[in-house]
Formats: sequence, structure tokens, C-alpha cells
Amino acid sequence: MTACIMEHLHISQFLGILVVMLVAAKASGYLAQRAGQPAVLGELIGGVLVGKSALGLVNPELETIHLLSELGVVILLFAIGLETDLGRLVKVGATSLAVAVAGVVLPFALGFSACQLLGQSVVVSIVAAATLTATSVGITARVLSDLGRLQETEGQIILGAAVIDDILGLLILGVVAELTEGREVSGLGILQTTASALGFLGAALLVGTHLVPVLFRWASRIELPGTATALALIAAFGLAWLADRCGSAMIIGAFAAGLLVARAPQSREIERGITEIGHFFVPLFFVAVGAAVDMRALNPLDPSTRPALIFGLALIVTGVAGKLAAGYAPFWFRGNKMVVGVGMVPRGEVGLIFAQAGLASGVFDAGLFGGATMMVIVTTLFAPPVLKYLLGPGVPSELEVESKVIDGLVNDA
Amino acid sequence: MTACIMEHLHISQFLGILVVMLVAAKASGYLAQRAGQPAVLGELIGGVLVGKSALGLVNPELETIHLLSELGVVILLFAIGLETDLGRLVKVGATSLAVAVAGVVLPFALGFSACQLLGQSVVVSIVAAATLTATSVGITARVLSDLGRLQETEGQIILGAAVIDDILGLLILGVVAELTEGREVSGLGILQTTASALGFLGAALLVGTHLVPVLFRWASRIELPGTATALALIAAFGLAWLADRCGSAMIIGAFAAGLLVARAPQSREIERGITEIGHFFVPLFFVAVGAAVDMRALNPLDPSTRPALIFGLALIVTGVAGKLAAGYAPFWFRGNKMVVGVGMVPRGEVGLIFAQAGLASGVFDAGLFGGATMMVIVTTLFAPPVLKYLLGPGVPSELEVESKVIDGLVNDA
Repeated sequence: MTACIMEHLHISQFLGILVVMLVAAKASGYLAQRAGQPAVLGELIGGVLVGKSALGLVNPELETIHLLSELGVVILLFAIGLETDLGRLVKVGATSLAVAVAGVVLPFALGFSACQLLGQSVVVSIVAAATLTATSVGITARVLSDLGRLQETEGQIILGAAVIDDILGLLILGVVAELTEGREVSGLGILQTTASALGFLGAALLVGTHLVPVLFRWASRIELPGTATALALIAAFGLAWLADRCGSAMIIGAFAAGLLVARAPQSREIERGITEIGHFFVPLFFVAVGAAVDMRALNPLDPSTRPALIFGLALIVTGVAGKLAAGYAPFWFRGNKMVVGVGMVPRGEVGLIFAQAGLASGVFDAGLFGGATMMVIVTTLFAPPVLKYLLGPGVPSELEVESKVIDGLVNDA
Repeated sequence: MTACIMEHLHISQFLGILVVMLVAAKASGYLAQRAGQPAVLGELIGGVLVGKSALGLVNPELETIHLLSELGVVILLFAIGLETDLGRLVKVGATSLAVAVAGVVLPFALGFSACQLLGQSVVVSIVAAATLTATSVGITARVLSDLGRLQETEGQIILGAAVIDDILGLLILGVVAELTEGREVSGLGILQTTASALGFLGAALLVGTHLVPVLFRWASRIELPGTATALALIAAFGLAWLADRCGSAMIIGAFAAGLLVARAPQSREIERGITEIGHFFVPLFFVAVGAAVDMRALNPLDPSTRPALIFGLALIVTGVAGKLAAGYAPFWFRGNKMVVGVGMVPRGEVGLIFAQAGLASGVFDAGLFGGATMMVIVTTLFAPPVLKYLLGPGVPSELEVESKVIDGLVNDA
């Protein structure tokens, strides 16, 4: 029961904002597709256009808009889990782990060094470097499925690494929060967070593997349409909630729920239902991410933004280089290491959360926050066209598109 | 930019509340079906169980929960519009108008007289009588489609009357608001509200009839799944928003959008998409209506609730009698007049809005508000089993259920 800091939203304003967000998502997504780019790139740019930077029609900090967009990423990760083969994910597990760990260590080291060279304080350097460690699993997965490559080995490695990165991100965010509050960082606390995050995932998969088929087989006797999808949503939201309560990340819970529900006998019906519901919620998330960005802090014609631009440029170079290098960390992997590296580059909403934590704690001033935001924007917009260039077209056939959850969510522009 | 009076809702709390609402809707809906009752009755009772009266898990006054449940009724009315044949609705228009007008005049007159006999003040009597004039089109339509009777003449008359009643309800609510604020009631103001509500509906249908087919034909060239449904939602939310801005009711806008979009070439695809999205949103609305009810004000064992009970009983008797009589107002109609009357009885969320306006303005004290709430509960729970009894089973075949939007929304328990 914390105090409320939001404006009160009337239902007609809410409907108006939803119309703006849907139009922005669909129109920009369509234009992106026409330009040969993934639809998600259009949705992000559409968000920038209607958000703080330009038209100011969508304020992603409004409670309901924020919660709906979060629901969008929960549903997206659930849908990705539905499409993911747990066995194949485990098979590339070691490779994913190497990419994830290198993808945290290298950008952090490079970013910290660059900030020190620019004369920033140790605390600022740590927070900025921490911002570089994030990977947006939502954006990465959407891009891969936009290109129909989620099922390939590279796609599975990136997906696994991005999920691990989310767990590592939680640990780093905890450490950063303690640092910026001037508290002592305890090894025990880090260990506890790690144990609860990993423990949650293991326990959920173990219990769920036995419980989910029983539950859904029982429900399959109810002959009314919509039951299976409702039960699937209950599983997705329930595990996301539980993950959060266990100190793990919500989207890890949603992803685990997807892995489990994929084994239900009604999985086809559920895929259809989740695709339609995702068509509504998922673009709200990407538009909200775009709308949260403030481009005005980065006007190159304004001399006062110069230091922020230099700081941002340093973060971009070290952020991109660090994640690209991470793709080469699993030296034993024979596939396309460049694709893996590029897939880890987008920071998306996770990067924004880090940057906002820095701003809220007073470590970042508005300029430094602008620079960090610039890094988030560039890395997020960098991956879709580069991956598209590296992978070529290779989109699955129309029929395959229709039948797949993720491809459905992808191509909804 | 009014001040915010809500609590701040964290995403994990939000997910927890959604899980509770979905479980309540589906479990109670399933039990209602097993007991041979419409699923919506179960959803309402499920809402009562998790709401203020009992478990207290769902607070429907939280901003996001309120807005999502409103979105549910917007989507429900849009889906009903999609299924409605405008020609048939116009054909029964005169009958509907007679039922609607009688269904406002008779309950008002009976309720006012009863309150005066109980010794209430004139203002209290007017507000209480006004509460009796409401009809919940959402609940009525759901009950009819639960029973597979929405397409029959009686169903169309009730639907038309309920829509007209919503327009009349707006006028009455405006008058009540002016009365309770002690202001002069102006005939010009009433005329203005009527003109803008009717003008909106006419203009929307006129412009939309020409614009919608062009727009959707253009969109049908975009070959990506989800486009048509997204466009349909944009039309639904957009017209609901516009209706509200024009001083008409949001749900009238959504209903008009459904009538228009039904003529799009992709209407089958849209029906499928809206059904799946409705499976999620529509039950949230009914659970929220149930959760808003406070049964504790009506404990018959507590002597202090006695006056509220007598007041409530008087409202129930006059409220049910008035609406039943309204079914017989169109003397020329040869169908089942009792069914029409019973279909107009449920007050649902519209009655709660009236009662809450009475409470907020200070005209109702907690006891009178409890009595009015009791009337809303009883009339809302009265219609489903009585209609079921009058109409018999007559549910359409399984195939038909699958293919119809409303039937889909109905049977989602």
C-alpha cells in the first residue's frame, strides 16, 4: 500500500490511448515490413513517435498502460515458451551459459574502463557498466521469430543465453541498488538471490511436469470453448507471479509456464488462443518501450547535450563490442557466432530499467541518463536490421506462419 | 488531471489479482453450467465470493482492474454488435422503444410511490426510483446468448430495448446528478443530451457504413495474420471513445462498431479473434460486477440492517414488477411478453452506478445504499434462472456454438 503517484485515468482516455498505441504499432509495423525489416522495429519506432520524444500521446508511466505492457511481455514470453523445445534448449545449455556469462563480463569490463577514461566517478562507472550487461529477451526473441529463425541452433542459444542473462541481470540490479544506496554489498545476499532464482525455475519445471498434464487432461473433459486458453493464462500469470515472489524474474516464470503448457493435450487450441490475445497485448509492450524513450536529451544541435552524447557513444561502442565478442566465447560452437553476438546486443526495456534505477538513485544526472538511454535506443534498433542482413529472408511459408504462435505474434503488423 | 485516489498496483499483485479473477470466473462458471444455469450467473457469484463481501481478494475500485473490466464490457458489446443484424433490429424498433420507455416509466413510478409510502424524502425517492430504471444490456445479452436465444425475436426486442434504455439511463443519470447537487434541472440540458446521444449513433452508422468496407478492403491486402482483428479493435475502442466524447454511452459506440465491422470482408477472421480476446476480458467484467457488491450490509441476523432490508425489498418488488409489466407494453406484439419482461429485469453494473452516484452525493446513507445494492443483486441473479426456466434448454448445436462469437463468449466457463 504505497502512496499513489499516478494520474487518475478515465475510461475514455484509456480507450483513446489504446487506439493510439494500436494504430502506431500496426501502421509502423506495416511500414517496417514493407521496408524489409522486422515488424517489431516498426512497433518500437511507432512507440517513439507517439511517446515522450515526439507527439506525447502515450505516457508509458501511467499505471494501467505500464501494467498492460508488462502483461504483454509476460504473454510474449509464455508464447515463446510454448514454442520452445526444452530438450533442445538443454542441449545448447553450456553454449548459452558461456554466451550469457561472457555477455555480462565483457560489456561490464569495457564499459567500466571507458567511463573511467572519460573521468566519471567509480559509482557512475559501475552503474553505467551494469546497464550494458542487460539483454532484452523479448526483443531478441521477437526479432528472431520475425525472421523465422527462432527454431535454429543460433536462435536457441540466444534464447537460452537471454534467459540466463535475465537471472544475472537480477543479481546485478540487486548489487547496483545496494551500491547506489551506499550499503555494503554482501556475498551472502548475492548467493541468496541466485539460489532463489535458479531454485524457482528448477522447482517449477519439476512440479509442473507432473502437475500440468494431469490438470489439463482433467480440464479437457469440460467441453466449452475457451477453457484450455483460460487455464493456460492462469498458469502463465500464476507462475509469473510466483517467480516474482520467489525473487526471480516474472518473465522467467511466464517462460517456464510456456515450456510446461506445451505438453498439454490441448496445446494446439491454446496456441491459437494465445496468438489472438498476443496480437492485442504484445504490440502494447513494444510501443510502450519506444514511448519511454526521450530523444530530446540527445539533440546533436544543442551544445548542452554534447557530454551526454560522448558518454552515450562510449557506451554504444563498448556495449556492442562486448556483446559481439560474447558470441565468440563458446569457442567449441561451430555455427554462426556473429549471429549469436548480434542477437545479444539489444538492451530494450531491461536496459531502460537499469538506467532508470541509476536516475532514480541520483547516480545519473539527466545528461548521463540521456546518454544511457541513447545506448539503449541504438542497441535495440541495431539488432533487427543487422540480423536481417546476416540471415537473409528465409521466412517460413504462409501456412507455417499461420500455424505458429510466435510467428503469429511476429507478423501482426 | 484529477488527483489520484487509488493505491499503486505492482505488476506481481496485478498478476495475482488476474489469476484470482480468472479462476473465480472459470470455476464458478463451470459449476453454474453443471447446475444447468448460464455461465454468467456463475461468474457473477464467483465475483461476489472473491470481492468485498467475502474473501476480499479483488478490489474492483483499483484503477487498472476497473479499466480492464470496462474494456471487457466494451468488447462484449462489440461482439454482440458483430452478431446483430441491423435490419432485424430496426424491424423490431417500435416494439423495443415501447418496452424501453415503459421499462423506465413504470419502475420509476412504482419505486417512487413505494419510497414515499416508506416515509423517505422526495430526493431519496427520486434517486432510488431512478436506480430502478436501469437495464444491464451486458448481462441481458450474455444470458440470452448463454441460452442460444439472442437471434430470436424476443432476444432482438430485449437487445434493442436495452440499448435504448442505456440512452435513457444517461439522461436520467444527468438529471439525478443535477438534482443531488441541488441545481435546477433544465429541459434544454435534457434535450441536448438526447440529441447528442441519438445524433452520435446516427452519424456513426451513416459514416461508418461507407467508410468501414473501404478501410477493411484496403487492409485485406496486408497478408499478415492479426491485421483485421487489430483494425476491428481500433474501430471498437475508437467509436466507444467517440461516443463518450459526444455525451453518448461508451458501450453504444462499441455496439455500433460491431454492427459496422460485421460487413467487413474479413468478418469471420475478426469473429474468431474477438472471441479469443473476449474469453479473457469479458469474464473480468462480470467478476468485477460481482466483486463490487457488499453483501455484509444486508445481514438479516443483524437488527441494524433491518430498515435497509425493508427498503431493499420494496425496491425489489417494484423493480421486478415494473420491468415485467414493461414487457406487456407493446400490446401489438404476439410473441412471449413474459420473456421480454424478465429479460429487462437485471440491473447489473448500470444499477450499481446509479446507487453509487446516490451514495457519493450523500443522498443515500450506507443503509439505503445497502438496500439499493440488494435490489441490484437480486434482479441481476433473478433473470438467468427464470429465463432458463421460461425458455427451456434449446442451446444450439456444438458446431454452431463454435462458430459464433457470442456463443463463444458465453460458454467460456
